[in-house]
Amino acid sequence: MSERNKELEQDFNPELDLKLERIIDLPREWIYEAWTTPASIKEWFCPKPWGVSHCEVDLKPGGLFRAVMLSPEGEEIPNMGCYLEIVPNERIIWTDALLPGYRPAPEPVSGANLYFTGMILLSETQEGTKYLAISKHRNKEDCKKHEEMGFHQGWGIVLDQLIEYVRSIKK
Amino acid sequence: MSERNKELEQDFNPELDLKLERIIDLPREWIYEAWTTPASIKEWFCPKPWGVSHCEVDLKPGGLFRAVMLSPEGEEIPNMGCYLEIVPNERIIWTDALLPGYRPAPEPVSGANLYFTGMILLSETQEGTKYLAISKHRNKEDCKKHEEMGFHQGWGIVLDQLIEYVRSIKK
Repeated sequence: MSERNKELEQDFNPELDLKLERIIDLPREWIYEAWTTPASIKEWFCPKPWGVSHCEVDLKPGGLFRAVMLSPEGEEIPNMGCYLEIVPNERIIWTDALLPGYRPAPEPVSGANLYFTGMILLSETQEGTKYLAISKHRNKEDCKKHEEMGFHQGWGIVLDQLIEYVRSIKK
Repeated sequence: MSERNKELEQDFNPELDLKLERIIDLPREWIYEAWTTPASIKEWFCPKPWGVSHCEVDLKPGGLFRAVMLSPEGEEIPNMGCYLEIVPNERIIWTDALLPGYRPAPEPVSGANLYFTGMILLSETQEGTKYLAISKHRNKEDCKKHEEMGFHQGWGIVLDQLIEYVRSIKK
């Protein structure tokens, strides 16, 4: 694991942060690609039968991440963040506390409807790729709210969808 | 000027952002050093007779920037941010909308007492170093408040102090 990933993992605070960790039998490169390619994100980012109507990725610190969520009834939920750290095949960090270009966000524009910073940390292990997703919050209340909204189930379902999608296109 | 500095300069929004621009007869390297070295920051960061009682710099994206302000009466005002982009001799970007480690800040911990992202962009010109300082805000109200607090005067005074300090140690 890279030193930086280790550092970020050790910075986890159980009172303020949530995480989902899994060993996945897919190369890091494919998971990173699925997380950074709009056409892929549209396939797995929302728990079905929800979908993504529109996705934009400007993959650099300060760049836009947008994945508009689409309900089965056709309602759109805006969802937007700003990338902070991008290291291919290792790490994706973004936040909805900033707009693209690093402007402080007047309000969170995300499905979670709260300020959070998301991290996807990928590392190689003997068993497969370690996938560690972390959500960092500004206080215990936001952390609890995100957990009660179904963080673990939701992020787990979309990870299942990501894996299924990647297997379907890489087979 | 680097493409990235140009892009950030063009992203300036007069309704939401403030800026201070000056041509300085000092090499970019010395200005960058003054902005990133705690011992230097303590000398110029606050308009005198205010000072800095404590300064910490963890110069990397996600790292801590702290410069506790000290009033002539000995009162301390906490001031803390998170670095976002660091390119030696070219660019320093930080925000108080995030804490170190990218956690969304529960409240702004800064002298300005509002969320902002600060940018120091340095470029070489034939006349000298172009120093462009930008403050980005979440809305017009915060921008106006920051301006009325004396942004232009304050950031101008500390730039004068920075120049004077650098000249004194480099002569």
